[in-house]
Amino acid sequence: MANLQTVSPDVRPGSGSSRAKDPRSPSATTTNTGRPAARYDEIRGLSESLCARLTPEDCVAQSMPDASPVKWHLAHTTWFFETFLLKEFVRGYKDFHPRFGFLFNSYYNGKGPRHARPARGVLTRPSLEEVLAYRAHVDAHVLDRLDRIGSTPDGGVDAESLRILEIGLHHEQQHQELILTDVKHLFSQNALAPAYRAPLAPTRSAPDSLGWKTIAEGVRSIGHSGLGFSFDNERPAHRVFLEPFRIADRLITNAEYREFIADGGYRRPELWLDLGWATVQREGWRAPLYWRGGDGDASEFTLAGERELCDAEPVAHVSFFEADAFARWAGARLPTEAEWEVACGAREVCGHFVDEGRLHPNVADPGRRRDVARDEAEGSVDDGLRQLFGDLWEWTSSSYDAYPGYRPDEGTLGEYNGKFMCDQHVLRGGSCASSRSHLRASYRNFFHAPDRWQFSGIRLAKESP
Amino acid sequence: MANLQTVSPDVRPGSGSSRAKDPRSPSATTTNTGRPAARYDEIRGLSESLCARLTPEDCVAQSMPDASPVKWHLAHTTWFFETFLLKEFVRGYKDFHPRFGFLFNSYYNGKGPRHARPARGVLTRPSLEEVLAYRAHVDAHVLDRLDRIGSTPDGGVDAESLRILEIGLHHEQQHQELILTDVKHLFSQNALAPAYRAPLAPTRSAPDSLGWKTIAEGVRSIGHSGLGFSFDNERPAHRVFLEPFRIADRLITNAEYREFIADGGYRRPELWLDLGWATVQREGWRAPLYWRGGDGDASEFTLAGERELCDAEPVAHVSFFEADAFARWAGARLPTEAEWEVACGAREVCGHFVDEGRLHPNVADPGRRRDVARDEAEGSVDDGLRQLFGDLWEWTSSSYDAYPGYRPDEGTLGEYNGKFMCDQHVLRGGSCASSRSHLRASYRNFFHAPDRWQFSGIRLAKESP
Amino acid sequence: MANLQTVSPDVRPGSGSSRAKDPRSPSATTTNTGRPAARYDEIRGLSESLCARLTPEDCVAQSMPDASPVKWHLAHTTWFFETFLLKEFVRGYKDFHPRFGFLFNSYYNGKGPRHARPARGVLTRPSLEEVLAYRAHVDAHVLDRLDRIGSTPDGGVDAESLRILEIGLHHEQQHQELILTDVKHLFSQNALAPAYRAPLAPTRSAPDSLGWKTIAEGVRSIGHSGLGFSFDNERPAHRVFLEPFRIADRLITNAEYREFIADGGYRRPELWLDLGWATVQREGWRAPLYWRGGDGDASEFTLAGERELCDAEPVAHVSFFEADAFARWAGARLPTEAEWEVACGAREVCGHFVDEGRLHPNVADPGRRRDVARDEAEGSVDDGLRQLFGDLWEWTSSSYDAYPGYRPDEGTLGEYNGKFMCDQHVLRGGSCASSRSHLRASYRNFFHAPDRWQFSGIRLAKESP
Amino acid sequence: MANLQTVSPDVRPGSGSSRAKDPRSPSATTTNTGRPAARYDEIRGLSESLCARLTPEDCVAQSMPDASPVKWHLAHTTWFFETFLLKEFVRGYKDFHPRFGFLFNSYYNGKGPRHARPARGVLTRPSLEEVLAYRAHVDAHVLDRLDRIGSTPDGGVDAESLRILEIGLHHEQQHQELILTDVKHLFSQNALAPAYRAPLAPTRSAPDSLGWKTIAEGVRSIGHSGLGFSFDNERPAHRVFLEPFRIADRLITNAEYREFIADGGYRRPELWLDLGWATVQREGWRAPLYWRGGDGDASEFTLAGERELCDAEPVAHVSFFEADAFARWAGARLPTEAEWEVACGAREVCGHFVDEGRLHPNVADPGRRRDVARDEAEGSVDDGLRQLFGDLWEWTSSSYDAYPGYRPDEGTLGEYNGKFMCDQHVLRGGSCASSRSHLRASYRNFFHAPDRWQFSGIRLAKESP
Repeated sequence: MANLQTVSPDVRPGSGSSRAKDPRSPSATTTNTGRPAARYDEIRGLSESLCARLTPEDCVAQSMPDASPVKWHLAHTTWFFETFLLKEFVRGYKDFHPRFGFLFNSYYNGKGPRHARPARGVLTRPSLEEVLAYRAHVDAHVLDRLDRIGSTPDGGVDAESLRILEIGLHHEQQHQELILTDVKHLFSQNALAPAYRAPLAPTRSAPDSLGWKTIAEGVRSIGHSGLGFSFDNERPAHRVFLEPFRIADRLITNAEYREFIADGGYRRPELWLDLGWATVQREGWRAPLYWRGGDGDASEFTLAGERELCDAEPVAHVSFFEADAFARWAGARLPTEAEWEVACGAREVCGHFVDEGRLHPNVADPGRRRDVARDEAEGSVDDGLRQLFGDLWEWTSSSYDAYPGYRPDEGTLGEYNGKFMCDQHVLRGGSCASSRSHLRASYRNFFHAPDRWQFSGIRLAKESP
Repeated sequence: MANLQTVSPDVRPGSGSSRAKDPRSPSATTTNTGRPAARYDEIRGLSESLCARLTPEDCVAQSMPDASPVKWHLAHTTWFFETFLLKEFVRGYKDFHPRFGFLFNSYYNGKGPRHARPARGVLTRPSLEEVLAYRAHVDAHVLDRLDRIGSTPDGGVDAESLRILEIGLHHEQQHQELILTDVKHLFSQNALAPAYRAPLAPTRSAPDSLGWKTIAEGVRSIGHSGLGFSFDNERPAHRVFLEPFRIADRLITNAEYREFIADGGYRRPELWLDLGWATVQREGWRAPLYWRGGDGDASEFTLAGERELCDAEPVAHVSFFEADAFARWAGARLPTEAEWEVACGAREVCGHFVDEGRLHPNVADPGRRRDVARDEAEGSVDDGLRQLFGDLWEWTSSSYDAYPGYRPDEGTLGEYNGKFMCDQHVLRGGSCASSRSHLRASYRNFFHAPDRWQFSGIRLAKESP
Repeated sequence: MANLQTVSPDVRPGSGSSRAKDPRSPSATTTNTGRPAARYDEIRGLSESLCARLTPEDCVAQSMPDASPVKWHLAHTTWFFETFLLKEFVRGYKDFHPRFGFLFNSYYNGKGPRHARPARGVLTRPSLEEVLAYRAHVDAHVLDRLDRIGSTPDGGVDAESLRILEIGLHHEQQHQELILTDVKHLFSQNALAPAYRAPLAPTRSAPDSLGWKTIAEGVRSIGHSGLGFSFDNERPAHRVFLEPFRIADRLITNAEYREFIADGGYRRPELWLDLGWATVQREGWRAPLYWRGGDGDASEFTLAGERELCDAEPVAHVSFFEADAFARWAGARLPTEAEWEVACGAREVCGHFVDEGRLHPNVADPGRRRDVARDEAEGSVDDGLRQLFGDLWEWTSSSYDAYPGYRPDEGTLGEYNGKFMCDQHVLRGGSCASSRSHLRASYRNFFHAPDRWQFSGIRLAKESP
Repeated sequence: MANLQTVSPDVRPGSGSSRAKDPRSPSATTTNTGRPAARYDEIRGLSESLCARLTPEDCVAQSMPDASPVKWHLAHTTWFFETFLLKEFVRGYKDFHPRFGFLFNSYYNGKGPRHARPARGVLTRPSLEEVLAYRAHVDAHVLDRLDRIGSTPDGGVDAESLRILEIGLHHEQQHQELILTDVKHLFSQNALAPAYRAPLAPTRSAPDSLGWKTIAEGVRSIGHSGLGFSFDNERPAHRVFLEPFRIADRLITNAEYREFIADGGYRRPELWLDLGWATVQREGWRAPLYWRGGDGDASEFTLAGERELCDAEPVAHVSFFEADAFARWAGARLPTEAEWEVACGAREVCGHFVDEGRLHPNVADPGRRRDVARDEAEGSVDDGLRQLFGDLWEWTSSSYDAYPGYRPDEGTLGEYNGKFMCDQHVLRGGSCASSRSHLRASYRNFFHAPDRWQFSGIRLAKESP
């Protein structure tokens, strides 16, 4: 039998990027607190590092219309800097290639026509090598621009270009997560079951039983304020009134989800939203996206290849429909995004992120649990709420609507978030494929109700008794 | 040339119902304040009255999957009383026909399998005459049940059956509106342009210019409480915090909407949600659903046949996408449903409803306007806000989500509202096709973002300056 | 339980047509050998007679895009005479209604735009009554025209208008068959299982075993020549060379087809054309269209309602795919259309047609069988070949291609047949829903390979050993 | 501006195949008359040679469901030899990889389940390198088997395995043509317009005017007989009767086709089959697949990149619908496949094939024309008929049906051709992407009526006057 490349090499031969780093290497976990050029270099480098394990062939394929080829992600994020930063702020900058704007514009009507999204997989040219050259070209110009910031008196332009730079870096981090979810989806459809990373040992620890934290009613403020970066959809900070509620202290596990299945979860229409039940019927769902092995559901497909399904790990790759149905079955509900954000409070962003290279959600840490009944100060470091950041994005019950007073960013960048505020659902907290430095309590991610290919999981909430 | 039945007769010969009344007749406008049997009789009678102008052929056709045949509406509302009232509360009641449950169940999984929704138009049998007989049979049993209420000591059963009766009557009123919107859609697709009612004279009055009422910030209560009827989705009443906002004092007119079109409204992607723009492109939209006559858009199709487009009348049959795009073009936004309800306040339900038989939105009454800047008590009778009830359902910016603490009704009736809380959008206020007695400030209607066949219009809101 | 109109009355009250006759009545079976006016009257009358058992509601519904409402058939055939005969040959003739051309043109691009085919079910207006008035109006003008033929010296115009009349009458007969197949399809989707005609007793006789007639090789002539009517697609008569072959002496029965099913017919891909197998999978086929009752397949839906499945009757409502798969399973094949026509020869058109009103295929008559091995003169009256005409259309292996030298009729009538010569398959012989006077040995019917709603069956052929 | 790989290098660096040859090199044009091992080696080598100009990224993409990735073609043809030859005839042969049967089975139900056809583009693994190793492995075993043939007395097995070998080689040649057409389709969708080969100079010569050869009526034999290779669908040879006809002496040119367009060809429904007109409307066709440049249609996309449209070259990449409409416009028709084959006769297979590496149809050679009126012996070398073989596949008017007496090959190989005999259309003669050694007069190619991505063109026929 042939010895195939079904486990990716850690380094792609001849990738040509001296900057490419394994995401598990120490520098990848450095907090991005340095000067802009260093942060730029580090974040851009991670994108290439994520591709170092992939072949050029892996990077060209598109497994479904919602996903994009890895190479396209690499080029699009570069087009973003070229279009919104270099062409706006660098006098005399010339396009790297006159057709790349057509090929790598994602959805910005303000930037002209573009290659059809579902057909990104036909772009075998430019080659990965050429895309890496495109990246190097744009990187050189961006770093040159950053070098000169402050050396001229034009503070206004400098501030604006630094703002765009920051958006571009967060945009890059979003696509880094998409690279991982899209590769996972791609590999999952191949009967060879290729692995993106080395095997992961099964986790044997068991989480403690689900606990609940109670939050009192009141007028609270959510949304982003202050100095740090935020996307326009997190603004403005504004007041909401919350009735009292309880929120679960960890994510739902595979074992708990298996009980739902065993109790007829996928066969009982009364547990589902109408659209969800129609989807279950049409798609033949009977387990989360990557569970395998028939009725036993003994294994799941992961970025580390096919792997035993571990009871204690949080259930991943469920749709909003499944999260909602599970909650109904459990006699609970999903939290609203405001509840989630208030519960999260001001705690530090810590958890399991892409930075540690596991690329799979981890078991909730039992050591950090406390008597949650006695501590109701939201967001305190020791209130027992675990897994809020990292591991899995958490579906909320909130539709993705505009905040009161919402204003999209000026110009074409205003197309970034606002035009998608329709028939999508908010997820909070980030995942094992997110960068730690990318996340905030006010961060609003959003996907469609049937989407399952993101690292998405379930946290329950309840009315307060 | 043949003299065709393109204008409906006011009375369908041989309809056989002595109860059928023209909706414009005085008794149809009576407030339903009488005893249950009288209300039942009046509301059920309106359904048949609405069909008296239609031929049996008109009543069998289904013009699209979202619409239903008139005959199906007549039978389904009857099945509702038979299933949830007679079979539950009347000992020994026998099904009128063993297959009617299969044919006329709409979407209640708890009541078993059913005829496919998009194929309702194949149900040429039972005939309209037989469906009217079905109605008479069920009506007789319901009225008999009502006669006996109170004559026995079983207060608990009586109260519960009266509650179901009330739901059934509001359900019937919802389907009365659907009968009108579905017939309008059906007739609009016929090159003969049949008219449901006699011609309407054009309206020549001009509304005053758009005014704004300001509402102060604060914690407010929305949702239904108190003794009157409400659907489960209006409950529980709960507190929300509203930032200050302004709300327009009337609906947007055809003349105002025409400006939007003339300014490239349907050709400028920056005005649209992403899904909306995709819909505009795919469907070739360039005016509201029933506008006709090419670039001039000189006429529109109405229940009174094709008719001159009147500048002063409110623009009707727009989707959420169009309402949202218009608002963006106008430098405003749609109100949230909470803003709408707070602005509405406790005012009396008055306006133009199905009861008056016009079946087309009317011009805002200029006589009732006041200096809104001086009167900020929300919902006061004289605050200048017009057209809140009746004329047209008003798209809000709110996705149709559950209220905090929402509990669906018990049993199969719990499928009525809750399972549709996904990817739909809330409309408020009722229309010229709604019964006055059916509406409340807390009433939540909901449709999908691209839907245009309902009597839906636009009211603007803004941040407070 | 209600006593519904699930069996059609023999006479539709108020149909208003004094001409309407039951198809079983004696006059309907009269051979159309009289003068044109009599033939016109008789054939047109049968169309209305076929509808006499239907309610106006039955006549408005369209059960699938391939089918049309009965009322549409009645109007379209009338439009045909109005358009191609009256408007061409009757000076000063005025359209009955200016929009009927738009509504009732089927597919003639040369006659302008038209109502969308899949939406014919929305045409609740004109009413059936108005369509009958349209028929009466056109009939009067046609008969008036026929009265004057020969009274003027314009022989050329007379001959041409008689030719169009003849096409129109055959066109009418085609739609009479479609009325029956479309009503059957419509009723089959209704859980009430309405019956078009009175119940049919089961047939108990058993057909003799399948025999084969051998036809010798040689150059033969097929296609239409001579004086009688033919469609353009049957012309010109031309020579073909046939290798020797055998043809079955009767249609395949339900019992024989059940053996195919029992032997895994619908589960074995090797028996099917690639497109056929894909259709079986996609549609979940496991029996002919109207068989019911699960694995036992004990009953079938007929125009006489649901009825016991009779072993000896020919299997009906199979697609080309099923006919082809059955033949492969049986170690045989379907005949080519040339083989069928040569085998048919010059025999008289006799069999079971719409004229006898059974409206269901009958058992092959054992009495007429002969020793086919001894009689190889093709088409002789006594060669033992049965059921060639009537009962069921017989799928041939021939794609519907043009004959050598084919010329479509001049003008817009050239769109009648020729433009459909692509990806359809030829059927021969007519069915129990065809008029006897409509059929010929050279008649070519054609449908798509997956079509099953026609009265279609299976006759086998084989190479000569 | 970047210097991208939009023109393919002639040699892919590191392709690792010492056998890979440029198709223009002399050895590629050698007639395959040698011993089996040499023929095997030569034909298999051409497949790899065709890929030598492509990057691994080019080889993984699938541009539409009808096309396949180049890498898949390379692997599937190898699976064919492994499955039907090695596993059947070589004792102890082990699968190269246990999942390759699932991945690279195309449509053989007899060989088990398989990867979904429209998703072949997700197979980034195995890598191109691994597929080439798979080829080398299978090649070694096949050549070893061939070495031993004749050294044992098992003549029957030897003959059977040589027969399978021959099928496998012709199968390989079919996929070589598909590699070229699929790469052309892939590259055509890329805004970078990559070129597969070096630029082609425009052709300036003009063909002489269209001439016609007359063929007399009579019984002729078509289909394959004799010793050489043929597919089962060419057999058995059988007699047909042909009415007299005329056939054009060359293919239709771009200039002639442009006249059709200028005369409203794509806007006149009367020129089209009904399905063709529907396709024109739905797809917005207004020129052949690869014509570009708007109304002028000044250029076309070719395997040599975008290139001036040359009047004298034959029009390529037209569907059956377009060929048929052009013929109707020209007052002619397409030939039947029998007419084509009889006209072709016994002439030698000569013309412009893949062997010469042009990969684009060429202008008809005027030098070889003769007075066709005087020479009616079909198929004579000097009868003036040009371009019968090579340049472009020629659509015939014949549906792809079975020949009388057709028997599919035994076993799973019987799925090769027969199951596709439904709703496809026969093309004859081969193209500039076919190998000369692959073609015969009796060769039947087949595609669907709307297909345009093959090298397909138009030859006219007519009735004899």
